Amino acid sequence: MPKFNPAVETLAAPPIPTVFSWGKSYDGRSGPMIDLSQAVPGYPAHPEMLRLLGDYAANSAYTGYGPIEGDARLRQVYGAHVASVYGASLGAENVHVTAGCNQAFVCAAVTLAGAGDTVLMSNPYYFNQETSLAMLGIKVELTPCDPENGFLPDLAMLEAAITPKVRALALVSPNNPTGAVYPPELLSDIFDLCRARGIWLILDETYRDFMPEGVQRPHGLFQKPDWQQTLISLYSFSKSFCIPGHRLGAITAGPAVVEQVAKVMDNVQICPPRSAQAAVADALPLLAEWREKNRMEIVQRAAALQETLEGLNGWSIGAVGAYFAFVRHPFADRTSSEVAEGLARKAGILCLPGSYFGPGQERYLRFAFANANSETIRLLRDRVQRFDDPS
Amino acid sequence: MPKFNPAVETLAAPPIPTVFSWGKSYDGRSGPMIDLSQAVPGYPAHPEMLRLLGDYAANSAYTGYGPIEGDARLRQVYGAHVASVYGASLGAENVHVTAGCNQAFVCAAVTLAGAGDTVLMSNPYYFNQETSLAMLGIKVELTPCDPENGFLPDLAMLEAAITPKVRALALVSPNNPTGAVYPPELLSDIFDLCRARGIWLILDETYRDFMPEGVQRPHGLFQKPDWQQTLISLYSFSKSFCIPGHRLGAITAGPAVVEQVAKVMDNVQICPPRSAQAAVADALPLLAEWREKNRMEIVQRAAALQETLEGLNGWSIGAVGAYFAFVRHPFADRTSSEVAEGLARKAGILCLPGSYFGPGQERYLRFAFANANSETIRLLRDRVQRFDDPS
Repeated sequence: MPKFNPAVETLAAPPIPTVFSWGKSYDGRSGPMIDLSQAVPGYPAHPEMLRLLGDYAANSAYTGYGPIEGDARLRQVYGAHVASVYGASLGAENVHVTAGCNQAFVCAAVTLAGAGDTVLMSNPYYFNQETSLAMLGIKVELTPCDPENGFLPDLAMLEAAITPKVRALALVSPNNPTGAVYPPELLSDIFDLCRARGIWLILDETYRDFMPEGVQRPHGLFQKPDWQQTLISLYSFSKSFCIPGHRLGAITAGPAVVEQVAKVMDNVQICPPRSAQAAVADALPLLAEWREKNRMEIVQRAAALQETLEGLNGWSIGAVGAYFAFVRHPFADRTSSEVAEGLARKAGILCLPGSYFGPGQERYLRFAFANANSETIRLLRDRVQRFDDPS
Repeated sequence: MPKFNPAVETLAAPPIPTVFSWGKSYDGRSGPMIDLSQAVPGYPAHPEMLRLLGDYAANSAYTGYGPIEGDARLRQVYGAHVASVYGASLGAENVHVTAGCNQAFVCAAVTLAGAGDTVLMSNPYYFNQETSLAMLGIKVELTPCDPENGFLPDLAMLEAAITPKVRALALVSPNNPTGAVYPPELLSDIFDLCRARGIWLILDETYRDFMPEGVQRPHGLFQKPDWQQTLISLYSFSKSFCIPGHRLGAITAGPAVVEQVAKVMDNVQICPPRSAQAAVADALPLLAEWREKNRMEIVQRAAALQETLEGLNGWSIGAVGAYFAFVRHPFADRTSSEVAEGLARKAGILCLPGSYFGPGQERYLRFAFANANSETIRLLRDRVQRFDDPS
């Protein structure tokens, strides 16, 4: 057989199916499996969302190709939404619709960097961003996030890591996997650093609709007069509207970036799926209250998780927020994969090993707590307490 | 502003929107615009297809993520369909569903080749394949297809072009842009050449449902005992089901290839759009007769085009078949862009310049004749006849 691209062949198999396979051998002894693995909303899409998706999908007006950058109406509606969320002045020309946020990241990466260039990421990182860069031959440099500082990136360390080969810094806030919500002041400092050093800042904001109480807006970067020269913000409609299966996300950036991204998207996808774009354009204003209710629900789930794990022998929460908690386990002589596999097989808890998110994360597990309601989350206490042997 | 990836920045703007912009300045003097630019079916999707798309999109069972490789049911149904079309023995394990055939090509390319590797293509080529490789830093080598031989690739030339840096040969049959249907014997010889030289054969078969009369099957490659070591076949559901806006295609290959492609697809897309997969799994057997009727309709449209351009001063058809004709224009001192732009602005005919499909194609235009019915196609004669000055 001819060779494969070694950059692909050496990638590990996609992590989520591996974790699912652990769950299959759970015998149900502690009750139904609690799935905190993949970040999927633990409540269904709104009936009105389903009606809109169905109506537009059955409509022949949406069977044809659309504009590469996304349908004009969604770009306009989403641009206005972003302007409102951030108190900033931007519009349709700043929006490129994509088929999900992973695709947004891949297209942004190809737009900014080629094989041999370097993109700077945090450790821990969202694994698909790391594998996306690796498969493209783009080098990844990591800067550690100190657990003692809530897993926030460190400005001085970032500064030291920006070598001449670095084309972009890729961050995720609220963070996947830790849940850490980066403070606006920190993001402002990081933006200023990127601008001063002439590199792009790719900020994945997939989880920004699930902010804790009291956050007025995620950050003020879109208010900086020259944000379009530095910032590329990524977003996903999957989580907020509970429709990951419909594959819809967006890039918010300057028109010059949108123009380059469109060349990449034309090759990758020609255009994003049409009917879901029309449905989300309607749903964005229509389901604003419902999304706010969900945000409050998920804030309660985070609180439930904190209560549940409080004072549990050897377990602690490294960081928690939005969708995720990065949980420290007590088994110093075990890998995070061994612990996660044990939790799946013996305790009926499906979560991801810290090692999936970067080197040196063996003491951690990612709990996508937003998947489960507070009642289910409280069941974790007993299961975790009785779990004393990962093997 | 920080730099973009030069491999993206140097790409020309996507061609289809440029051509659409020419059409906007047509004053309607010869009647409504005849759009033969983008390859889109010139008839609507079947009402049953729309009903299925609507029903599944409104169903909450399809709002979640699905398997990376595609939903089990579509993989099974499509695998059986391919087995039946080619009289071959293959199944679900040979199928990777994608969001359209462009994505299938990009994922296959990343799977097989990295920056600096070479992929061999024909000249003329389908432009998005060339730009996909270019944006990834993969080098493209071209072998000419002789107009005197119906734009078929030449085996000896292919053989000479396979240097040690070549990782794959990418071909399209029925061809885009020429419409040429590669004979099974030629494809068999090309397969044997690729196998002997240890390179992959990527065969884009987006238009295989629109074969001329009398073709029993597109080729016999899937019957070769070791096809999985060499062949990667690409397909699109967009044309046959008239649903390009729903973005659905497929890769047919060996399980070892599917396993590698899944790593790439996980990064690019996580999974293909869910509800459209369920709808197409139903529609594949259900709308078989309707697709056959459409095939016959498009065969008639090809005949109508041949009659229409026959004996027209200086115009001739270089090749025709499936969806496309590669038409030779009489303006030796004009570029194909000048002629195409003139046809759009003055004659109300939207088509693509030959130069979009490779160097040295200035005397040709691509007519996507399948977009228009026979009656509309016959209107071309008068418009082309009166068009004597592209400027």
